[in-house]
Amino acid sequence: MPGSSTAYSNLEKRFARLSALSGAAAILHWDSATIMPSGGSDARAEQLAALSLLSHEILNKPEVADLLEQAKSETANLNDWQLANLTEMRNRWRHATAVDPDLVEAHSHATSRCEMEWREARINNDFDTLIPSLKEVVHLTGRIAEAKSAAFGMSPYDALLDEYEPGCTAAMIDPLFNDLQAFLPNFLGDVLDRNKNAPPILQPEGPFDETLQKQLGLEFMTALGFDFDHGRLDISHHPFTGGIPDDVRLTTRYETGDFTQSLMGTLHETGHALYEQGLPKEWRSQPVGAARGMALHESQSLLIEMQLSRSADFLAFAQPRIKAMFNGDGAAWEIENIERLYLKVEPGFIRVDADEVTYPLHVILRYQLEKALLSGDLVVEDLPAAWNKGMRDALGVNPPNDRLGCLQDIHWPSGAIGYFPTYTLGAMAAAQIYRAAAAEIPDLVENIRAGQFTSLVEWLRRNIHSLGSSQSTESIIQAATGRPLNAHAFKAHLRDRYLT
Amino acid sequence: MPGSSTAYSNLEKRFARLSALSGAAAILHWDSATIMPSGGSDARAEQLAALSLLSHEILNKPEVADLLEQAKSETANLNDWQLANLTEMRNRWRHATAVDPDLVEAHSHATSRCEMEWREARINNDFDTLIPSLKEVVHLTGRIAEAKSAAFGMSPYDALLDEYEPGCTAAMIDPLFNDLQAFLPNFLGDVLDRNKNAPPILQPEGPFDETLQKQLGLEFMTALGFDFDHGRLDISHHPFTGGIPDDVRLTTRYETGDFTQSLMGTLHETGHALYEQGLPKEWRSQPVGAARGMALHESQSLLIEMQLSRSADFLAFAQPRIKAMFNGDGAAWEIENIERLYLKVEPGFIRVDADEVTYPLHVILRYQLEKALLSGDLVVEDLPAAWNKGMRDALGVNPPNDRLGCLQDIHWPSGAIGYFPTYTLGAMAAAQIYRAAAAEIPDLVENIRAGQFTSLVEWLRRNIHSLGSSQSTESIIQAATGRPLNAHAFKAHLRDRYLT
Repeated sequence: MPGSSTAYSNLEKRFARLSALSGAAAILHWDSATIMPSGGSDARAEQLAALSLLSHEILNKPEVADLLEQAKSETANLNDWQLANLTEMRNRWRHATAVDPDLVEAHSHATSRCEMEWREARINNDFDTLIPSLKEVVHLTGRIAEAKSAAFGMSPYDALLDEYEPGCTAAMIDPLFNDLQAFLPNFLGDVLDRNKNAPPILQPEGPFDETLQKQLGLEFMTALGFDFDHGRLDISHHPFTGGIPDDVRLTTRYETGDFTQSLMGTLHETGHALYEQGLPKEWRSQPVGAARGMALHESQSLLIEMQLSRSADFLAFAQPRIKAMFNGDGAAWEIENIERLYLKVEPGFIRVDADEVTYPLHVILRYQLEKALLSGDLVVEDLPAAWNKGMRDALGVNPPNDRLGCLQDIHWPSGAIGYFPTYTLGAMAAAQIYRAAAAEIPDLVENIRAGQFTSLVEWLRRNIHSLGSSQSTESIIQAATGRPLNAHAFKAHLRDRYLT
Repeated sequence: MPGSSTAYSNLEKRFARLSALSGAAAILHWDSATIMPSGGSDARAEQLAALSLLSHEILNKPEVADLLEQAKSETANLNDWQLANLTEMRNRWRHATAVDPDLVEAHSHATSRCEMEWREARINNDFDTLIPSLKEVVHLTGRIAEAKSAAFGMSPYDALLDEYEPGCTAAMIDPLFNDLQAFLPNFLGDVLDRNKNAPPILQPEGPFDETLQKQLGLEFMTALGFDFDHGRLDISHHPFTGGIPDDVRLTTRYETGDFTQSLMGTLHETGHALYEQGLPKEWRSQPVGAARGMALHESQSLLIEMQLSRSADFLAFAQPRIKAMFNGDGAAWEIENIERLYLKVEPGFIRVDADEVTYPLHVILRYQLEKALLSGDLVVEDLPAAWNKGMRDALGVNPPNDRLGCLQDIHWPSGAIGYFPTYTLGAMAAAQIYRAAAAEIPDLVENIRAGQFTSLVEWLRRNIHSLGSSQSTESIIQAATGRPLNAHAFKAHLRDRYLT
């Protein structure tokens, strides 16, 4: 073990400080999205900008480069976790230093402006006004991609992807997405055909008291093992999981007319939260202790939401509780109907409202479009037409306007190119990991039907959560499931659930 | 006006960053005290320590000393606010640089430890276990006082006082406190004599729903002009006003058996909050835009709570609303009883529960004891005996144990020596400022009885709040009231309220 005077231990101290700063920013971000009075937003933006700038300065100090260099000669004295930590440090450092600070600042201003304009443009269904600032964001994101591409020796798109899912490349994504693209449209047709003759799905009648909805969410979170000594459930306009592993702040929103979305939303975020709470405690302040990447993160939320919570076994446990909480009565509350409610498949315009069958088609379209935007094959002005054509081809629906089309997501206005694929990589990983868990855990079905999730969550802790970033996503999935990530389990899951 | 390349404008940028960091810390501190799950406390301590350390580093950079020196040659180009800002910058800088960083760190660790031990010691009523760590805190605080004393050319106690109430000295406090000490014991005797023959005060019977108590607090905060676009009301164990001027987070606590304390507590904090919200908007990120000091801050909370809200005129407005909110009925709810409830005078053991007549005697005792602790005339081991003797002499009560005695306050364990006097300076200032306002505002009584507080709050904005730290406390009080701070108005107020 290295003593306190080594380059490595010096780096650990610096990264612990960075972790404290990013943790502070995470709580402040959560606060802005949940409880901050509107008049606090300018001051909050200044606070977050100061924290971000300071972090950037700490990482960009020449000593950090020197220490990373020196630490190379200390590797014989480092254990596996420390070695992995050093790799993660180096990865963060190279992302922070690959780009000229002026470009970082220009990009940050451009995305702030574009996000603001996007909010207006979306409300007003007015893509044209967004064109200049979105072009600027795409242009500057492209320059960042080029700078990183040169520094990392990978393609510009891969260099962006690397920030969200380290080590992932378009070459890895393409065959997976091609597989899904070959499968999903026909499969979707079969499901829709089959559903044609099914009886109508009944919507339980509200209103559903917010307090009761929250109580139900808390009940299921508790059953799943969410640790309320290290986290909270609150309300925000866009549900998310924020905070830090020791203090996970997850949010949902309640509609009094429909409890179903909020409940699954809460369970989805609980999947993210369990990952955070399960990260290795002794590495909390270090890069190696962080969640591996966005794909694996999404795999944990989708495993809880899609694989577990929408399953017939889970609903056998959940439906009596849901019914009792809302004092439900009648056919709409019967388990068969609740199950069909939660497994409804229908092509639509909006990604975040999509079911698990159509969702990947939304993502693949965005993946193709953002690669084309980055390469220059598609110009921003042509985005609406390309979007709408893509939606017709993939899902057979024709967005009646850009609000229901290319204006629906904040990702591109905020400069996040390379993020979208992680949603569907996560969906595939969720299916593959869940199948592996089910094969290894004795009595999983019985446990689930009895509301006992400890065996599942402990399996996830052991095989995924507690590994932090000590291994690559690929090796984590390989070790947990016995094979590399592929579309097989996801397709099998869809067939089992929707066509048998 | 200085251009962007001057030393002054460079300093403004650095202090804006410091303001963002301290604002971030203020929100995180509020979060810890209100909604943070218990398991988040270690990580939060790391976050706050990182922010504090970074601020210290920013202020201690050699460039800051150089810039402050260079700025001296630019003063001809600076307006009054900029000049005052420069003075405030220099004051913060000298507090930050007067003390050796190792001493700052040792002090910080000693106070953290002592605060923790104090919580236990207080619960267990066990002063002895606290002695070693409290001795250490007193010792290190003394070393800080000596370092600042040498650097600032003032006495060690004054050097500590300067941090809470810049410019204030023991030489200014002594005559004021002597005046009160000569007056209060006899006055208290007269009040108690007079009250002997009064009918008993009736306690309205609860329980009082927390939601209704909160609603009542919000109603009065709104009437007083609290801006909810720039602030919130929440719950904490120890009520306080936190956050930043653009986002004031005030807290209270509710007892279902007694609404009276929470209501006045909320109004007290609203006084602090109105000061924060009324600070000059264009100087928000600079030292000159901050509240002047703790004495003036307390004057604003006590003006709203003691001068205004416990007055017969305010209660004429408030009592019908209180009664209606809780659906009160009977003699306990009549205005005469509510008024007597809010003006009860009774010597007691606990400072925070004390009425405005006995409160200064609690403070003066602490002022004398902390000066003796700092000078070495009193050793920590002898504190309980000295405390109890002081309580007998000042208030005629004999604390039955240290929990009701010298263990009640967190100030000394947290290293805050020099803070206590500001409470009573604030009480005196509140009376003096309120009298001045009443003399200048036409129809103030009628306004108050009608629940119209705009005239009062605007007067406070103009004469106190909007001045920020652009002038000294002395000149603000002199300008607002026509005379230096003295005990006259406070004594007259007590006579008017309790003996006429």
